[in-house]
Amino acid sequence: MVTKRVPAGLPEDADLRRADSLAREIFSDVANKWALLIIEALGEGTLRFSELRDEVEGVSHKMLTQNLRMLERNGLVERTVHPTVPPRVEYTLTEPGRELRTAVDAICGWTHEHLDHVEQARERFGER
Amino acid sequence: MVTKRVPAGLPEDADLRRADSLAREIFSDVANKWALLIIEALGEGTLRFSELRDEVEGVSHKMLTQNLRMLERNGLVERTVHPTVPPRVEYTLTEPGRELRTAVDAICGWTHEHLDHVEQARERFGER
Repeated sequence: MVTKRVPAGLPEDADLRRADSLAREIFSDVANKWALLIIEALGEGTLRFSELRDEVEGVSHKMLTQNLRMLERNGLVERTVHPTVPPRVEYTLTEPGRELRTAVDAICGWTHEHLDHVEQARERFGER
Repeated sequence: MVTKRVPAGLPEDADLRRADSLAREIFSDVANKWALLIIEALGEGTLRFSELRDEVEGVSHKMLTQNLRMLERNGLVERTVHPTVPPRVEYTLTEPGRELRTAVDAICGWTHEHLDHVEQARERFGER
């Protein structure tokens, strides 16, 4: 990676670049199907790992673990360990997580509203 | 894959299942970082392949080609070949593509609004 030198007297440019780079990084983290489906599932309320695995159809243990860890690291999901025997581990959306869920809802809504459009487009595409 | 038999007299259930399955498939197609970044870039207007490659930072030739093809197949992007020498190929969002862009915009906006929150969460996560 090449690090560009920031000219003196232009700290706001450096801040902007740093903000852009961080925003891209966060976007890359969350803009994947499993992360978005986890956010959607937790939008309905707190869930345990096994419940999430049932809700997010097709997700593997590994993918669910990785994405929950990533979402927790980025502050979208809160993980609570209840000191029972065995410990009960629950996942909840944070307030920013709930805000992002609105956008995920919009994508889910969009897919359901455009089933016919997509089917017709696929047919045309297949005919070429 | 196991195909469940649909009991006679419940065609609406079969339709619902088919719709859900198609919706999930479309969601899996579009809910990836490159597809969403392409939709975001084309939200500003028609672009050629090389322009898209400049706009979507970090995308490889292969990923851009694959995702454009997927977006065209699903009717989100229209590909126009102008009969010049050499042919000029341009990509434009369709109306459904523009609608989905609103949701992508919301995710982009969300990342920029929560930079501080994410940074703080990452620090806390790193400290554990």
